[in-house]
Amino acid sequence: MARIVMKFGGTSVADLDRIRNVARHVKREVDAGHEVAVVVSAMAGKTNELVNWVQQMPKVAGASASFYDAREYDAIVASGEQVTSGLLAIALQSMGVDARSWQGWQIPVKTDNAHAAARIVDIDGSELIRRFEIGQVAVVAGFQGVGPDNRLATLGRGGSDTSAVAIAAAVKADRCDIYTDVDGVYTTDPRIEPKARRMKKIAFEEMLEMASLGAKVLQVRSVELAMVHKVRTFVRSSFEDPDAPGMGDLLNPPGTLICDEEEIVEQEVVTGIAYAKDEAQISLRRLADRPGVSAAIFGPLADAHINVDMIVQNISEDGSRTDMTFTVPSSDAEKALAVLAGQKELVGYDVVQSESGLAKVSVIGIGMRSHAGVAASAFKALAEKSINIKAITTSEIKISILIDGAYAELAVRTLHSVYGLDKT
Amino acid sequence: MARIVMKFGGTSVADLDRIRNVARHVKREVDAGHEVAVVVSAMAGKTNELVNWVQQMPKVAGASASFYDAREYDAIVASGEQVTSGLLAIALQSMGVDARSWQGWQIPVKTDNAHAAARIVDIDGSELIRRFEIGQVAVVAGFQGVGPDNRLATLGRGGSDTSAVAIAAAVKADRCDIYTDVDGVYTTDPRIEPKARRMKKIAFEEMLEMASLGAKVLQVRSVELAMVHKVRTFVRSSFEDPDAPGMGDLLNPPGTLICDEEEIVEQEVVTGIAYAKDEAQISLRRLADRPGVSAAIFGPLADAHINVDMIVQNISEDGSRTDMTFTVPSSDAEKALAVLAGQKELVGYDVVQSESGLAKVSVIGIGMRSHAGVAASAFKALAEKSINIKAITTSEIKISILIDGAYAELAVRTLHSVYGLDKT
Repeated sequence: MARIVMKFGGTSVADLDRIRNVARHVKREVDAGHEVAVVVSAMAGKTNELVNWVQQMPKVAGASASFYDAREYDAIVASGEQVTSGLLAIALQSMGVDARSWQGWQIPVKTDNAHAAARIVDIDGSELIRRFEIGQVAVVAGFQGVGPDNRLATLGRGGSDTSAVAIAAAVKADRCDIYTDVDGVYTTDPRIEPKARRMKKIAFEEMLEMASLGAKVLQVRSVELAMVHKVRTFVRSSFEDPDAPGMGDLLNPPGTLICDEEEIVEQEVVTGIAYAKDEAQISLRRLADRPGVSAAIFGPLADAHINVDMIVQNISEDGSRTDMTFTVPSSDAEKALAVLAGQKELVGYDVVQSESGLAKVSVIGIGMRSHAGVAASAFKALAEKSINIKAITTSEIKISILIDGAYAELAVRTLHSVYGLDKT
Repeated sequence: MARIVMKFGGTSVADLDRIRNVARHVKREVDAGHEVAVVVSAMAGKTNELVNWVQQMPKVAGASASFYDAREYDAIVASGEQVTSGLLAIALQSMGVDARSWQGWQIPVKTDNAHAAARIVDIDGSELIRRFEIGQVAVVAGFQGVGPDNRLATLGRGGSDTSAVAIAAAVKADRCDIYTDVDGVYTTDPRIEPKARRMKKIAFEEMLEMASLGAKVLQVRSVELAMVHKVRTFVRSSFEDPDAPGMGDLLNPPGTLICDEEEIVEQEVVTGIAYAKDEAQISLRRLADRPGVSAAIFGPLADAHINVDMIVQNISEDGSRTDMTFTVPSSDAEKALAVLAGQKELVGYDVVQSESGLAKVSVIGIGMRSHAGVAASAFKALAEKSINIKAITTSEIKISILIDGAYAELAVRTLHSVYGLDKT
């Protein structure tokens, strides 16, 4: 017997038929004798509908954008998961499975006060555990909790993954199964490289890089949380027949296990290739090379909620002037340039150059730590395809390369092949 | 300065434009210096959509109807008002009105455990009053509260009227304004009698009879509650221009005031004519006339959730056998006959006769208490139109007459005229 948290996203609960199908997945685990909590998202499209209503509300006189109180946004948007959790509980009961729905405030899932982008502060798992002991399935509305102001707080888009992992940690679950519309984590995006393979296992750190660098299978925060609390997390498909052979396998269900690297016996050097398109590069030329310059650049950008990604600073030739390059999402480029224009005097740069339509391709693998030459192989392979590298950043377990966006797919396929990821 | 509770039903908040219009009604009262709480229903159609989802859930093996756990039904259905309350709070804020939404469990509105048809047990008005004192409008999700099990509980269809009156009582409001899609309470249904007039005032007891007997302006329970707590309740239209002259009149806003009879100086003898179609009459002939017979009939009918209305029993000719006649909604007639068939031996009746397609027309007025001849006038007028009376029941302030359904409209118009209700 194991304790399992199962999470189903919006496409998995998009209509009543799919909710009934989800109930069959849950029943399978219950029938196998496991203790089960389920975390659900809103029915696909529901959250968008609710958000859209909020955004259509009138503008405050003089304001350029729609106004809304994030606390009201939360009360409105959290209703979507509330509905799904109730419907799934009913579907389970009708199959003879004892179940009840739980809203975030009932458990409670306590969050901070950052409405619309709240973080989970604490989950009291004791009542859920008591329900496990009487054989009852807890169906939890994901994406939400209750703030210190006793008002509903949502975790930001995709937050149901985070809810699931946090609940798994709180009840000390043996496993957290994230059911989604894909059947696992792939070595790269199969739409770009048909030879991409589904991984059996991937280490938390690798998955974190994959998620951060563009793989949209899981929300980044959920992976961070799983890593911190060592929650073994499976990514698997909700669209397979719930009763197909192997679906109820406790140790090796179909899908990809995200786990501690120690659990991965034969670690590949490189495990995956991620990419992000629509990046823009901004370069500040001939900056004053003195303490505080970086803060004067990136502080105001952060204040403007611009997400700066790669940052490259070269050593200056003469010790007095240097160049600084960084990337932002293309959609933020114009705003970033405006912020920088306002800082010109303080920063003391000479000229600003910018370029949009770039792509960032990343090679990820824990094995890099102990293997030399991984970066060199990438540079060589890209050079052979005449792909020009605009910037490079590296960490212990990944290499990110900025290139012209037109070459993104070619670069992904090239790197996927170079590291042998297309071989079984 | 007054303290006002304003309630807006589903058609009044059916879309974003109407919600903005509701906000203008609220702003008008706030600008006039009043303390305001608003109670809202779900957007028109939303509750039906949610209920429909619940009803489409799978049947339990062997069950004839869809199964659902009323607690889950409540969690699902209550989400509709949650959304409206948040949207209205945002609309108010955007107009510069300080406002926040309140869900039933936050206030809290405490109910009993009768999920899906809960009754309000207690409302703690202290926090709402504290918000009045800082000039904040409370936007309350109607139709719901929280049960002793700490789960959402809904009050049954139309329950937002009851929420509004209960909150008005809890905060000791000067007035409870029920905004709806009609502009007041009429002497009878204007679709049947175009000469029907809007009443300026109607006594609680009369409104209770009107609501019970078919006038659908207000939920019966809300009127009971208003009567018990002496909440002065206005029925008025949400579709009029919020800033039209007189709309903000504190003492005489457009609409109908439901109030204590003592507040009505010139009480009419008859104030309104109500009707209900699709009634069925069931007669049991030659019953044993002994104690316990009524209980043997109506107990099982109540157990089968059949709503018995008029009951007429004649004195028996010889003291041993009697006839009993009662009415039920036509839709329940077949079920009622089946229940009676099962009781034949116990009740000891001879034959059962039944007739569907009847109508009940009722004459209502507190003045009847002190005026003789009211019933006689009705019988005479109906006889002149050759309308046959099938059964009669009376109370202190109403006379109900059962007739063939084909004559319902004619009877309503005839009685409306007999009591001079078409004269200003």
